[in-house]
Amino acid sequence: MPLLRVDVYEGRSDEQLKAVLDALHRAMLAAFGVPARDRYQIVHEHSPSRMIMEDTGLDIPRTASFVFVQVTTRPRSREMKETFYRLAVEELEKSCGIAPSDVMIDMVTCSDEDWSFGLGRAQFLTGEL
Amino acid sequence: MPLLRVDVYEGRSDEQLKAVLDALHRAMLAAFGVPARDRYQIVHEHSPSRMIMEDTGLDIPRTASFVFVQVTTRPRSREMKETFYRLAVEELEKSCGIAPSDVMIDMVTCSDEDWSFGLGRAQFLTGEL
Amino acid sequence: MPLLRVDVYEGRSDEQLKAVLDALHRAMLAAFGVPARDRYQIVHEHSPSRMIMEDTGLDIPRTASFVFVQVTTRPRSREMKETFYRLAVEELEKSCGIAPSDVMIDMVTCSDEDWSFGLGRAQFLTGEL
Repeated sequence: MPLLRVDVYEGRSDEQLKAVLDALHRAMLAAFGVPARDRYQIVHEHSPSRMIMEDTGLDIPRTASFVFVQVTTRPRSREMKETFYRLAVEELEKSCGIAPSDVMIDMVTCSDEDWSFGLGRAQFLTGEL
Repeated sequence: MPLLRVDVYEGRSDEQLKAVLDALHRAMLAAFGVPARDRYQIVHEHSPSRMIMEDTGLDIPRTASFVFVQVTTRPRSREMKETFYRLAVEELEKSCGIAPSDVMIDMVTCSDEDWSFGLGRAQFLTGEL
Repeated sequence: MPLLRVDVYEGRSDEQLKAVLDALHRAMLAAFGVPARDRYQIVHEHSPSRMIMEDTGLDIPRTASFVFVQVTTRPRSREMKETFYRLAVEELEKSCGIAPSDVMIDMVTCSDEDWSFGLGRAQFLTGEL
């Protein structure tokens, strides 16, 4: 937790994709202050016809490098979220050459009782986390 | 925003799939009153064994044309949601010949601070949207 | 409703995957007390480089048998959620030989007005459910 679903277009190598995931994890560590091994990332790759990402009229150009990140997390402050948006873009640009206009993020909030990390237990409730 | 994840069975052509996405976008424009370019759609295609969609005992038959739509959106009124359910079914039947019994929809709500459309900014907070 | 997205690594046969889904459905029936045909399950299969699942430092080992379940549901009590975590693990171990350490679950909550099971109607609002 948080869980990141990362939707991208097909065409990245394993190495390029790893760089994307590493960059997002660095941004998450810094923005949310989670433990190093609090890393849960799932990638979905799509052909161009299977992912349509426009811009709500904001004049934000999209390219084949586009990355959409959907984060499911327990409650986070507005400041932490804004920090993640900023750092994710910075890290992806620096490490992967992805333009800031090619990064879109959405957050969905759930609560402490909504997570079981394994063993059939809700670790935020048992005191393990 | 909203984001639509559209889960379907394998077998539609690019053209047929485009018709599905266009129909859903028309329903969204009319029901939520979003800008024309507020279009964010991701398709996941599945073999029959990878998507099991029953009916909670409602006697709603499902076929290979089944479409599941999961919408993530900031808060919308009950009326807007019900309008979307109705219009999505109408548009999909009219444009794609999909039976109303083959359309299932679920909505997940997040807030204004949960969206960054690009550039590392939360455009609902900055006043850009 | 609930909807389950089940993320696994590639490599399971149709039969093995069916056993996983059946086990999760038995856990759901028992934990949430839903009708028998309240079954909505979508599987996403990933290569190892496309799904990174660590452990937040909890010393929970992960293997190629790992199963992540993301449940979208209307509100459920803490007790029902904890029961599902426990039963899902038990059922998956008993029926599929999956270790309890290889099962991670997350829940996302939505409300009655957020579901249309077909026909363009919100069945929790119309009184059909």
